[in-house]
Amino acid sequence: MKTVGIVGLGVMGASFAARTKELGYRVLGMDIDQKTVDYALEHDMIDEGSIDASLLLGQCDFIILALYPTKLMGWIGQYQKDLRPGTLIMEISGVKSNINEPIRAILRSDLELLSIHPMCGRESRGIEFASGKIFDGANFIIIPNEANSMNSIVFVSVFAKELGCRNISVLSVKEHDRMIGFLSQLTHVIAVSLMNTHENSHLVEYTGDSFRDLTRIAKINEDMWTELFLLNKDILLDEIDQFVDSIENFRQVLVDEDEEEMKRLFVQSTQRRLKFDK
Amino acid sequence: MKTVGIVGLGVMGASFAARTKELGYRVLGMDIDQKTVDYALEHDMIDEGSIDASLLLGQCDFIILALYPTKLMGWIGQYQKDLRPGTLIMEISGVKSNINEPIRAILRSDLELLSIHPMCGRESRGIEFASGKIFDGANFIIIPNEANSMNSIVFVSVFAKELGCRNISVLSVKEHDRMIGFLSQLTHVIAVSLMNTHENSHLVEYTGDSFRDLTRIAKINEDMWTELFLLNKDILLDEIDQFVDSIENFRQVLVDEDEEEMKRLFVQSTQRRLKFDK
Repeated sequence: MKTVGIVGLGVMGASFAARTKELGYRVLGMDIDQKTVDYALEHDMIDEGSIDASLLLGQCDFIILALYPTKLMGWIGQYQKDLRPGTLIMEISGVKSNINEPIRAILRSDLELLSIHPMCGRESRGIEFASGKIFDGANFIIIPNEANSMNSIVFVSVFAKELGCRNISVLSVKEHDRMIGFLSQLTHVIAVSLMNTHENSHLVEYTGDSFRDLTRIAKINEDMWTELFLLNKDILLDEIDQFVDSIENFRQVLVDEDEEEMKRLFVQSTQRRLKFDK
Repeated sequence: MKTVGIVGLGVMGASFAARTKELGYRVLGMDIDQKTVDYALEHDMIDEGSIDASLLLGQCDFIILALYPTKLMGWIGQYQKDLRPGTLIMEISGVKSNINEPIRAILRSDLELLSIHPMCGRESRGIEFASGKIFDGANFIIIPNEANSMNSIVFVSVFAKELGCRNISVLSVKEHDRMIGFLSQLTHVIAVSLMNTHENSHLVEYTGDSFRDLTRIAKINEDMWTELFLLNKDILLDEIDQFVDSIENFRQVLVDEDEEEMKRLFVQSTQRRLKFDK
């Protein structure tokens, strides 16, 4: 089996480590925190680990960068010299427009960058919340660029399936960031804004599952999501505006007591939502 | 054990029937649809059933009205003559302001109305989706009025616990409708408006669980929720406005690229949401 290097053992990186280890890959884990490396070793998520990536990178057939988006450029600048020619570098950041091109602009010409996005995760950060199970049945998106080889596309497709992902699909950078702006970022803006609408702790004992489900993702990693929102600012603003238009439209229907239109909107949302049932 | 009459064998009424039957009550089911009564009998949810409520009501120690809110007044007008003096009538509609008082205004003086609200349910309507399990661990709210006896309050408290509910609490009509306006109605407006923001069926294969969780309740019974929203219109409009203010505030923070304030909002929503974990 191949040797995979996982850079950054947070909840996503360590989940990649745990699953690839189960699959029989040789897994090398790198993190800036020695305790995190130790945790990964103790929990059998990696074969070897180090806080000095330069010690391990030369052994890797491919690597997965599971770093905060704003850390990617600095990491490439510092460590690409340690990679073997031909090493495939996957990066998993949640936005691609301001990530993929800038990295390729500084990347050694004998290295290959491939952007991927497994649509899974956890609300909590850190290696203690990592689990290979997050990939089971998840959607997995490949965001290729013109420099990617057919071999790499085939490799990552099979790799995603091995991880346990169900639908593996391809999007362009623009399509990906627009899709993410709606499905992921707008939903987080809504959940956060709902929790922040007004003080609500006195409501805990009355709540049903609707409110719990709607606000689950209001528990959010403030550092990472601030980065992701700023990287996709224009698209996200547009999605917020479209959503606010939609809710203001509903508000007017309620003001007008237009029962027929209200029912039409409910039927439309019901029909659209049915397609998203797992 | 006592005899309970369940009026309306939709998803909620039939769930009450199924659970009270399991608990050993004698359960009499009433519905306007013979097929629904037959289904309840065949699935052992009721002991006896009829489409003519007047045949069964005289045997009931207490009844649960599980009808659409706008059907309650007409039902009371037609059938209260068939109830024994002292019968306790529970009604479970999702809004109380424009329900509890109007019914009591026409109610026989020897009958007692008690408003309750079990905070559970299903997105799908109809008896086929009924299950006694919906009560397990649910929150249960009693909304008493000045005419309720202490005996009835004690009875319903014990009854709610028997059903399997966890927290049983008391709210005034106003407190209840304000709470429902935020926790239940606003969340449904958000989910529906998000699904209606723009066409999105092409996004099914890319979605993660965030979007699914946020829009689960966009599958909605258009007839019942139109009634509930109109009955609580003023409160719901106010909650919508407060939510839109909150999301517009977030939008401006994003426009300004105010990272510090964005992180503060994320931390606040995270802390608030932690209290709602089950």
